[in-house]
Order: sequence, then C-alpha cells, then structure tokens
Amino acid sequence: MMNPVELIIKKRNGESLNREELTFFIESYLSGSIPEYQMASLLMAIFHKSMEPDEIQTLTEVYIASGDRITFPKDWHTVDKHSTGGVGDKISIVLAPIVAACGGIIPMISGRGLGHTGGTLDKLESIPGLRTDFSDAAFRSIVEDVGFSIISQSERLVPADRRIYALRDVIGTVESLPLITASIMSKKIAEGAQNLVIDLKVGSGAFMKTIQQARDLGVMLKTVGNNLNQKVSVVFTNMNSPLGNFIGNGLEIFECIEYLQGKPQSGIHEITTALAVEMLLMTGIAASKQEAETKILHAINSGAALGKLQDFITAQEGDPRVCENLSLLPRAAHQIPIYAEGTGWIEQIDSQKIGYALIDIGAGRRTLDTALDYGSGAYLPLKIGDSIQKGETIGTVYSSDVSQGEMVARKIAESFKVCKVPKKREVMLLDRL
Amino acid sequence: MMNPVELIIKKRNGESLNREELTFFIESYLSGSIPEYQMASLLMAIFHKSMEPDEIQTLTEVYIASGDRITFPKDWHTVDKHSTGGVGDKISIVLAPIVAACGGIIPMISGRGLGHTGGTLDKLESIPGLRTDFSDAAFRSIVEDVGFSIISQSERLVPADRRIYALRDVIGTVESLPLITASIMSKKIAEGAQNLVIDLKVGSGAFMKTIQQARDLGVMLKTVGNNLNQKVSVVFTNMNSPLGNFIGNGLEIFECIEYLQGKPQSGIHEITTALAVEMLLMTGIAASKQEAETKILHAINSGAALGKLQDFITAQEGDPRVCENLSLLPRAAHQIPIYAEGTGWIEQIDSQKIGYALIDIGAGRRTLDTALDYGSGAYLPLKIGDSIQKGETIGTVYSSDVSQGEMVARKIAESFKVCKVPKKREVMLLDRL
Repeated sequence: MMNPVELIIKKRNGESLNREELTFFIESYLSGSIPEYQMASLLMAIFHKSMEPDEIQTLTEVYIASGDRITFPKDWHTVDKHSTGGVGDKISIVLAPIVAACGGIIPMISGRGLGHTGGTLDKLESIPGLRTDFSDAAFRSIVEDVGFSIISQSERLVPADRRIYALRDVIGTVESLPLITASIMSKKIAEGAQNLVIDLKVGSGAFMKTIQQARDLGVMLKTVGNNLNQKVSVVFTNMNSPLGNFIGNGLEIFECIEYLQGKPQSGIHEITTALAVEMLLMTGIAASKQEAETKILHAINSGAALGKLQDFITAQEGDPRVCENLSLLPRAAHQIPIYAEGTGWIEQIDSQKIGYALIDIGAGRRTLDTALDYGSGAYLPLKIGDSIQKGETIGTVYSSDVSQGEMVARKIAESFKVCKVPKKREVMLLDRL
Repeated sequence: MMNPVELIIKKRNGESLNREELTFFIESYLSGSIPEYQMASLLMAIFHKSMEPDEIQTLTEVYIASGDRITFPKDWHTVDKHSTGGVGDKISIVLAPIVAACGGIIPMISGRGLGHTGGTLDKLESIPGLRTDFSDAAFRSIVEDVGFSIISQSERLVPADRRIYALRDVIGTVESLPLITASIMSKKIAEGAQNLVIDLKVGSGAFMKTIQQARDLGVMLKTVGNNLNQKVSVVFTNMNSPLGNFIGNGLEIFECIEYLQGKPQSGIHEITTALAVEMLLMTGIAASKQEAETKILHAINSGAALGKLQDFITAQEGDPRVCENLSLLPRAAHQIPIYAEGTGWIEQIDSQKIGYALIDIGAGRRTLDTALDYGSGAYLPLKIGDSIQKGETIGTVYSSDVSQGEMVARKIAESFKVCKVPKKREVMLLDRL
C-alpha cells in the first residue's frame, strides 16, 4: 500500500513518479480514497517541478486507462482538431463543416468555456434546440451521416481528466506543460480519431504566452500522440487579439454562418485554411497544399460547407433555419458603443481582460454553474496596428442590462493600448510542427 | 471580493501576498468558503516560491489574529521553550521543572507526536491520570501555583495554525521555512510568554537536515518574534541520533524522572543545561552563564526540580507517586534484544527510520486517530562513535507483541551503519543565535 504523502513529497522534491505510483494516485483519487486536497497538492508540485517526457507519456496513458475509448473503422481516416483555447475562438464551427464537405470525417469532442476563454459547446448551444449530449452510438451515427459531430465529453471518457481538469481550474495549475499534455492527448486518443491537428494559441490572450513555451508544448503533444499511434500536426497561431470580429456565444455563431455564406473574414479564414490544409493532407484527401486550398475554397464558395453545418444542426436537434435566417440567433436587447480612450495605433489588446469582462454580462462562466446569456458579447472589428482616435467608437457591447453593459464597455476600452508610432498588423500564423 | 484562484496564481508565480490578501485567504478558509484543496494548492505554492520576510511576518500576525491570546502579568517574566522536534526529545519534561525550581515561570503549550517524532503531551499522558486539556483559566492558575504547566492547544488558540498544520502534514508541505515560522511563532506569541528559547534540531532525525537550513529558520524565527515583542534565543542542537537512551512515551518519562533523581545522562544534561541557561539569562533570574549553571545544578541535586515535576503531575491530576515509584509507569510486557548487524564504529543512526519503525508497536502515531501503547518503545544507549560487534546486543525493544517487536528490533538494527575506522562522538550543541 503506497502512501500518498510520500508520493507528493517525491514529486515535490523533483523526482519522477513511475507507472505504478501514478496509477495508484489517480485511481485512488477517482475512487475517493485520495481526497481533493492531496491531488491539489500533487498538481501544484507538478506545476513547479514538471515531469520527464516518459513520465508525461505514462500520465497520459494512465488518464486514458481511467475510462472508455471510442473506436472508428480504420478506413474512415478520421481527423480531429484541438485548440488550446483563446478569446473569440470559433474555428471548430467553420472548420469541421469545411473539412467534412471535402470528404473528411471529424469526430469531435469539445469543451465548455471556463476562465477567460469561450467553449465551442456553449457557442453551439446558443442555436435554438441544439444538443451536445449524445451517446457514443448516436455520436458515431451522426459522424457517419453528416461527416462530423461535435459533442460533450461523456462521464466515461477519460474521467481522470474530467475530474483533474475541473480541479486544476480552481487551484491555479492550468498552465502546466505535463498536465496540459496529458489532458489534451488522453481525450484526443480516447475519442478515437486517427489524425489530429492542434491549433496551439500563442500570445497575451492564450495560456501559452511565448512561442518558446508553445513550441515545448507542441513537441510534447506530438511525441505523446505519435507514441500512442496518432498522427499529430501542430499549427502555432497568434492570440494577441481576439479571433474574428465577434466574441459571445450567439454572436460567434452569427459570424461563423456569415463566413460560410461567403462573407470575407481574414483572421478566421487564414487560421481555418491552415488547419484544414493539415487535415486534408494528413488524411490523404489532398496530395498537396495547393490542392487542399482549392478544395477548401470550393467547399465554402459552393455552399457545401454551409450545407454540412445545416445537416449537423439538424442531426443534433437544433433549428437549421438559422443558416438562412440569422435573426433566429439570440442577440441581447441593448447595444452599447465602446469609445476609444486614446489616440494612436493599437499596440496591444488585452484579450484576457476582455474575456473576463464579458463574464459580467453572461457571455462566459465564472464557475461551472454560471448561467449564460447566449445573446451577450461584443463586436470588436479593430486589430493590433489599426489607428484609432480618442472618443471614436471602436466596438459594441451586446448586453441584456444597460448599466452592466456600460461597465463592460469601459473595461473593454481600457484593454486597448495605443502607441504614437505606426505599428504593423500582426501575422496570424506563427509556425508549424 | 477577492478571487482565491488569482491569489494562488500570484503566489505560484513568485509574487508576494499582502496583508489584505493573506487575511482574506485564511479567514475564508477558516469560515469554510475556501475549500481544503485551494489551501493545499496555496501551501504547495508557498513551499516552492517561499515568502518575503515581511510576508512571513504578516502571515504570522494573520495566524495570531485568527484566535484568542493568553496574557500573563508583565512582571511574571514568563519564558517558554519550543523544540522543532526530534526522536526521543523529552527535554521539556525535565527543563520546565528545573527552570521553575530556579524561579522561572513557564506557560507551555505543547503538541502531540505525528510522523517520526514524538510529542510531549503523549509522553506526559503516559503518567496515570494526567490530563493536558485545561481551560485558559486553569492553565494560568497551575502556572501560578507550580511555576509551570504543559497543556494542549485549545480550539481557540491560533485556529489558523491548527487547521493548516494538520493539512500540511498530509499534503507534503511540512518542511517550508515560512510555514514553519508562522506556525511556531504564532502559537508561541499567542500563548503569552515574554521570552522564548528555541531548540532548533539539526540532522538526519530532524526536519532541518543541514545547519544552513536551520540557521535561515533560526534567523527568521528570531526576527518575527522580536518584531512582535518577544525576546527569542535559538540554540542549534544535534539530531543525528535519538536524544537520550529511551524512545517511547512511558519509557521517556521513566528516563526523565531518573535524570531529575540525579542519574547522569550526558545528552539530556547538555541540551537541558544549554536551554535552561538561556531561559535564566533572558528572564534576569541569572546574571551570567556561570550563575545560571550553578542554579540549574542545585535545582537538580537538591531535588527541587523533581519536586516541581511532582507538583505539576498533581496539579494536572496525574499520579505523583510515579516520581518515587518508577514501576507505576507503563512498560510493555516483552523485552526483545536488538542485535548489531555489523562490526565497527557507529557512523550513522537513522533516527527517522527508528521513529517510523516504533510506530508499528504503538509508540507513535500514523494518523491523528492512532491509539498509542504507552509502554512500548526502545532502549538505545549507543551513540555515533561507539564501537559495536556483529551479533552483540545494542539495545532493547519494549513491545506488547513479541513478533511485531522482533520485526521492529530488526528495523532498528538496520538503522545503525558502522564504519571500519574510529569515528568521534558528535557534539550536541552546534551553535546559538
């Protein structure tokens, strides 16, 4: 019988934990014989002392072994995308239908928003009627019929991650390379996709603040995936400003549908294309980058991708008419202008601050029980490098409550920093692996 | 309203927490609005990132403010002793009566054993009838009548420390300079003694393994005490071997009484005298080291110190006849010899291993609920530097169960390491501050 305190002390002192020790600790935690506070202490020790590569690999395997695995026929060439999370990140909602329209098969298990970043499931659930809680069998059947499905993690898929992820969030151990790696890769392997592209966000609005941190994580994700027979590509993308022009659940669905209807949106387009190219190449649907890009453009311009989104909404019991009638999407009653506080070129946008500010009007969650206001959010079309004038309108807050909306508008205004010399627009695609 | 996670992240990133933040965190923890797991995570972050001196000072003050304070009249010149804990440490039980016999006033709040070190309260409670759970008023009255009293920490004395200390023990954050400092000094200041001598144990059987670690802690303890109007002396003593010849609750009382009856015991005598000298100088009872030493010897040789112990036992409802009739003390039925495993000079004695081994026969606690066997323990008269021969008897285990006792005897035998070249006896007193 191992002693949990001795294992905590071992990790605290910078030693490695072996498979037997990690299995004991995590299984005892799941069965309730190790309490939350001992797990919390171990996680903070891992945060500070990190883990060896083979220890991270083992941790991921122990996570996977804690629950069920979904499998798909080998010849389906399944491919999934994972994003490490950012403000305004709605890419999955356009990427999955585009890749499906090109012939890809995407079984996607996604998450809810917590902290300053939003969640794909919350965004999808702003579509009237849409559900994300399907059984494994129903999930497989939607994937087969539509080409993609996006559902929530079931109780039985990687329970170790479900429990530990929720704990990490409230004990300040989110930004840990070994813990992030085990969390992402265990879920992505257990959900059964053979190929995976990771959108690794870098910058002030992301968990990884520097490209070096992000590269370390990227290498680790790829190594662990490959060791567990999953092909992994990593694309590093800029998260210094919110992604796209809208933030907020219903507002982002609005923006996604407009994009699939053919309305240009450069930030979304650039990232979606880069990720879709990887997915089409990995699965062999396209033989070259150029061929992939042609297929992607055609999927959008022909309306095929929008059709896939519509089929998906229907399959998951949402109202598919939203794809033609955007007014069916929730939108908060009041629109409050955001006024620039300074004059100059936008040097910095504190996306994290914006994400947290929007929680106050129900666009995000403070705790897992927070009720969302699907129609609330913000329209923020300006990016780093744009010039603004003090007092000019630089965006709009959508809120059900005017005075709270005004407070949020002020907080968002404060999150824009200007400089007196022209600043270049930032590149969206930073690197790939 | 502060956010606990943000405070954890602040400390995790190595920033200081201010008074308002520490107060919020600790008060919310005590009131139940911050759960154990968030406190556990903060404590592990403090373990890794430590605290600034003024932050440690503040933490100590926040601890003190969490409960009641006991006060004594200023002209009582109260003095207390604190030991950082070691194996076989029975010093309080002879020191308090000696200093009281010299005219000192010692209001001592002590602890129970946990981990490999024993606790003064457990040792005292092996005396038939003796209680340690008195009210503040009864405590004061015993101190006034006898010159000293040794009781347990009440619910209302530094509840922050009581709760956090118990948590630290099970989450692997005991050996943290800021947490040790706040824990010791908050209790010692709240219990009202104007002067304090600290027996800071150093070595393999202590929490502080090196003299440098111990010095850092000593300086911090003294600084915090002085800033809160308590005079503090620190004596650094050797804890590479168990202290004295006996380990085990009733057995140590036996050894204490024999010592006060005049039986020489060099280890106990050296440390007790060093600490008592400090206490007599601090309180002005003696003007010089020499005068102090004369008074101490007289207190022992005249029987005055033994008389004080007897008065104390009576006042705390124990059977005072133990001071004359040692057979009234508990002693386990079976005595099992410990045989040397090697030939040579004793180079090392793993006191920590001995402490843990003795838990198996009830001499110490595995958890706070462990029932003790007051008569169990070991007699270990040999010290580092003594020569032994393989197979020779080097000590005795006292156990109620023969086979368990034999296992413990083997574990203790293993904890003696011999070398082939003569080794000097170790000095007991290492330094003072």
